[in-house]
Amino acid sequence: SGLNDGSVLGVGVDQELISSVPSYNPTFVARNFTDAEISYCQSQPSPSSSFAARWVAKEAAFKSLGVKSRGAAAAMKEIEILNDDSGVPAVHLHGDAKSKANEKGISKVLISLSHSENVAIAFAQATS
Amino acid sequence: SGLNDGSVLGVGVDQELISSVPSYNPTFVARNFTDAEISYCQSQPSPSSSFAARWVAKEAAFKSLGVKSRGAAAAMKEIEILNDDSGVPAVHLHGDAKSKANEKGISKVLISLSHSENVAIAFAQATS
Amino acid sequence: SGLNDGSVLGVGVDQELISSVPSYNPTFVARNFTDAEISYCQSQPSPSSSFAARWVAKEAAFKSLGVKSRGAAAAMKEIEILNDDSGVPAVHLHGDAKSKANEKGISKVLISLSHSENVAIAFAQATS
Repeated sequence: SGLNDGSVLGVGVDQELISSVPSYNPTFVARNFTDAEISYCQSQPSPSSSFAARWVAKEAAFKSLGVKSRGAAAAMKEIEILNDDSGVPAVHLHGDAKSKANEKGISKVLISLSHSENVAIAFAQATS
Repeated sequence: SGLNDGSVLGVGVDQELISSVPSYNPTFVARNFTDAEISYCQSQPSPSSSFAARWVAKEAAFKSLGVKSRGAAAAMKEIEILNDDSGVPAVHLHGDAKSKANEKGISKVLISLSHSENVAIAFAQATS
Repeated sequence: SGLNDGSVLGVGVDQELISSVPSYNPTFVARNFTDAEISYCQSQPSPSSSFAARWVAKEAAFKSLGVKSRGAAAAMKEIEILNDDSGVPAVHLHGDAKSKANEKGISKVLISLSHSENVAIAFAQATS
């Protein structure tokens, strides 16, 4: 597959009302976000918007992997969304999420996110 | 083009208010959805949301083909959105929609869809 | 990179409330849109919706380039969104936006846009 690096293997889109993502709930946050994600979101002007944007990014990235259902073994914490040095969000897969991606020949998941006043949206693309 | 399998040839996005997709109208449904799509949507918790999500998926897939206008010859029924065995939505092209895709070297259209309480959105990607 | 033409190098999504894009402000319009874009938008049934759709398209295209921040040197006017002969929107990069794309090996940015009654959304994809 050396000839196919950068081939698209799956896409994912997700949107949520920012108010519907329970970022005020510490259990939800601790279960689904890494320490680095929590630090980032809490440092932003609107933490609830940032948590919501990262939440839809995780959902979109998960969809792009094309796996059946996440279940207990593919926690959303394993799909980590961190900004790179240029401030561009990047997906870091860990644990079972990474294993499933590897099985499918997915080496990278590209992501973009956006939030308006009340809606967060994200788009993800899994490539070889 | 054997070297380019998976190359992206077009993208498409569409969104609609769920309330603006007339899934209560049997003529609209029969004209635009296949029997398999109708069965699926009617089995879902919110059929109107499911019809709307599939409708925007058809529009997004159509846009990703990059053809001028659909007209009578490229009915939306020819762009069928069905879940695969993993529950991941997949695009099946038929008739003129398939012919136009073939002309453009498009062998696959990847799709993802999402609906919040009142808006449905879909993203499509046409690849070689 | 002849083997990789069509490889995906970046994605971008953006959405805005149509009412939040100040297309009623001539300075905003003159600063951010080309003459060809202005002519097109003003010829459409709802110019404010068309300006908003092109605005989010510029933002999405910018995000897909994966550059740090646009600043003064990468004016949004340099990311021009024009319909091709088939009516399909296409991205034309100019000036610094084009230079930055070239540096990253990006030869094409695919775009799709959609607007509902009050929200405009766009998706962009930068490819080699």
